[in-house]
Amino acid sequence: MVVLPTESMDSHVVETQFAQFPSLSLDCGAQLSQVQVAYETYGTLNAARDNAILVCHAFSGDAHAAGISKEDGKPGWWDNMIGPEKAFDTERYFVISSNILGGCRGTTGPGSTDPLTGRPYGMTFPGMSVRDIVRLQKMLVDHLGITRLLAVTGGSMGGMQALEWAVTYPGAVASTLPIATTARHGAQQIAFNEVGRQAIMADPDWRDGNYYDGARPARGLAVARMVGHITYMSDHSMREKFGRRLREKGVHAIDFAAEFEVESYLRYRGGQFVDRFDANSYLYITKAMDYFDLANGYGSLPAALDRATCRFLVISFTSDWLYPSYQSLEIVSALRSRNRDVAYCELPSNYGHDAFLLEVEEQTSLVAGFLAATHKRVRQ
Amino acid sequence: MVVLPTESMDSHVVETQFAQFPSLSLDCGAQLSQVQVAYETYGTLNAARDNAILVCHAFSGDAHAAGISKEDGKPGWWDNMIGPEKAFDTERYFVISSNILGGCRGTTGPGSTDPLTGRPYGMTFPGMSVRDIVRLQKMLVDHLGITRLLAVTGGSMGGMQALEWAVTYPGAVASTLPIATTARHGAQQIAFNEVGRQAIMADPDWRDGNYYDGARPARGLAVARMVGHITYMSDHSMREKFGRRLREKGVHAIDFAAEFEVESYLRYRGGQFVDRFDANSYLYITKAMDYFDLANGYGSLPAALDRATCRFLVISFTSDWLYPSYQSLEIVSALRSRNRDVAYCELPSNYGHDAFLLEVEEQTSLVAGFLAATHKRVRQ
Repeated sequence: MVVLPTESMDSHVVETQFAQFPSLSLDCGAQLSQVQVAYETYGTLNAARDNAILVCHAFSGDAHAAGISKEDGKPGWWDNMIGPEKAFDTERYFVISSNILGGCRGTTGPGSTDPLTGRPYGMTFPGMSVRDIVRLQKMLVDHLGITRLLAVTGGSMGGMQALEWAVTYPGAVASTLPIATTARHGAQQIAFNEVGRQAIMADPDWRDGNYYDGARPARGLAVARMVGHITYMSDHSMREKFGRRLREKGVHAIDFAAEFEVESYLRYRGGQFVDRFDANSYLYITKAMDYFDLANGYGSLPAALDRATCRFLVISFTSDWLYPSYQSLEIVSALRSRNRDVAYCELPSNYGHDAFLLEVEEQTSLVAGFLAATHKRVRQ
Repeated sequence: MVVLPTESMDSHVVETQFAQFPSLSLDCGAQLSQVQVAYETYGTLNAARDNAILVCHAFSGDAHAAGISKEDGKPGWWDNMIGPEKAFDTERYFVISSNILGGCRGTTGPGSTDPLTGRPYGMTFPGMSVRDIVRLQKMLVDHLGITRLLAVTGGSMGGMQALEWAVTYPGAVASTLPIATTARHGAQQIAFNEVGRQAIMADPDWRDGNYYDGARPARGLAVARMVGHITYMSDHSMREKFGRRLREKGVHAIDFAAEFEVESYLRYRGGQFVDRFDANSYLYITKAMDYFDLANGYGSLPAALDRATCRFLVISFTSDWLYPSYQSLEIVSALRSRNRDVAYCELPSNYGHDAFLLEVEEQTSLVAGFLAATHKRVRQ
């Protein structure tokens, strides 16, 4: 039985759905067969089919973006932004969210069974790109009978997907909202991802990715996640949340068990992640992020964005040091250099990169206004 | 045979020396017996014994701060700052550098033999504090026949030691130069250290610290070091140094071997570290850093610094996000609130935390002037 929390009386129970596709061609030349996509939808597709919005999840997200999961009773990862009278108003719009290719939450990824061998792909899963992820999303959107999305959006890696949509399928997107993201990873972003990958691959339980019949590389994956969590917060938000508080009072001798609250929090979040995420997905998805460069194949970022015909609302956050505002400004400058329709807003926040999940109020007014204006324009 | 590199003709070959002490009392109540300290000295102690400067090393440093090592021919970690006519001018001053307690470079630490058991301490090494580290340094300084140091200095964790000297032994210090440091670790600094510790303790070769007779936890230690290296650099300096350059041209398919230059750099530095550093020392020293709080026992930072009687020169660097300038400013404000003699300088740099090792020119003029003025005052 699902108990609805009192604080989200407007949330409703949602069930993840699955679409099957016979094959998917990847940028690297490989072909995947029997590809499955996990997705959810919120709201109703109107008769004109012009009110569909695709929400792309960040690195470790899944298809459950909003509402209460029928499976485990948990709210979606962007439930504060998607729903009736929220930023992505499900009384007006039809919102689609799907788990990405390479994921481990219902869409085909390294942990899925390879139909050719009957065993999990593991590291035989082909190398994949953000463009491959978006290609599969396009197949899902086609499958749902939608030829043009009102908007594509997402934060962090979700924003990379949104940008890729605008460039690769310009005719299929009326607007794009890339949030707390970049057109390409810099050295520091690659470096943090690489530390996570090394932590996983250093775990003897990883066994070159062939761990599905035994112990999982839980310790390596937990360490990788801990690094991630630090980069998602800001120095300020960690200070506010934890300071130097010790978990128990009166601990004075050095103890290598977690003592500072920040330590036990990181260990808890690291351990929790292991239960819901696959280490090989971690490797493949972070590599796709590191390789992502919107300019690839077009010579330059302005040349790539020259293909886009949609409106843009680019959002970044002041304290986000993982995806700093200057990276959003690169996108904005490139768009302006090609006379594209772009609005940019750097929102004040102390939450660091996590701000795109937490700064609801300011994002809501920006997003709601932008979507309404776009919808009006589309209907003209 | 030691080959002197042509670029440091003024460097001379130095040999690490060792001092033995029958016992050392620690803050936790434990007593260490047969304690050894590795140290080096540069320049000459004058007849008045008023020209001695103690240089305290950062987390992973050692006693070899300057000159060319007789052992391996390598220059010291602060050779650009210590030597004839350098910031710490060895023609004027007598510079002392020692490996810290808990270290693994000649001073007693977890890898040393416990005289009671004849086996390495491992995790039976007592919990130690920055004050314990400084207490052992004080014994060395006494042993060298110096009652008052002209200056104590150090960057990063070396700066914590310098601050501890000023507060714990106010009569023994004429000036203190804390560089790129803090009076206490914040949540983010603790969090990064905790990730390193978790990476080490997750390595099955760590075996609760009892690895000295077998394989060392090299993979965990390398991952820990990789995290550290990212925090020592700035986003800007990583971008300048690596950008998105691939190690070899023409690699297009995803490959989990290191491809981006930043990846191979981090792996190289991680692997290199394993050869010269002990994982248990990593655990003990990072815990000492995390526990360090200059206010401990005094109620507040101003109350602690009220004990200090020396002059201060506090230096921080604009792009240092690991030890941000606001932490130096906390020290400066506390000193000013007690009318202490303090100069503060935030130096412009793109090098991040590593700036204290790299920004030689500006530091030299600041430090040289401050030391000359202090020496003049001491002699009056």
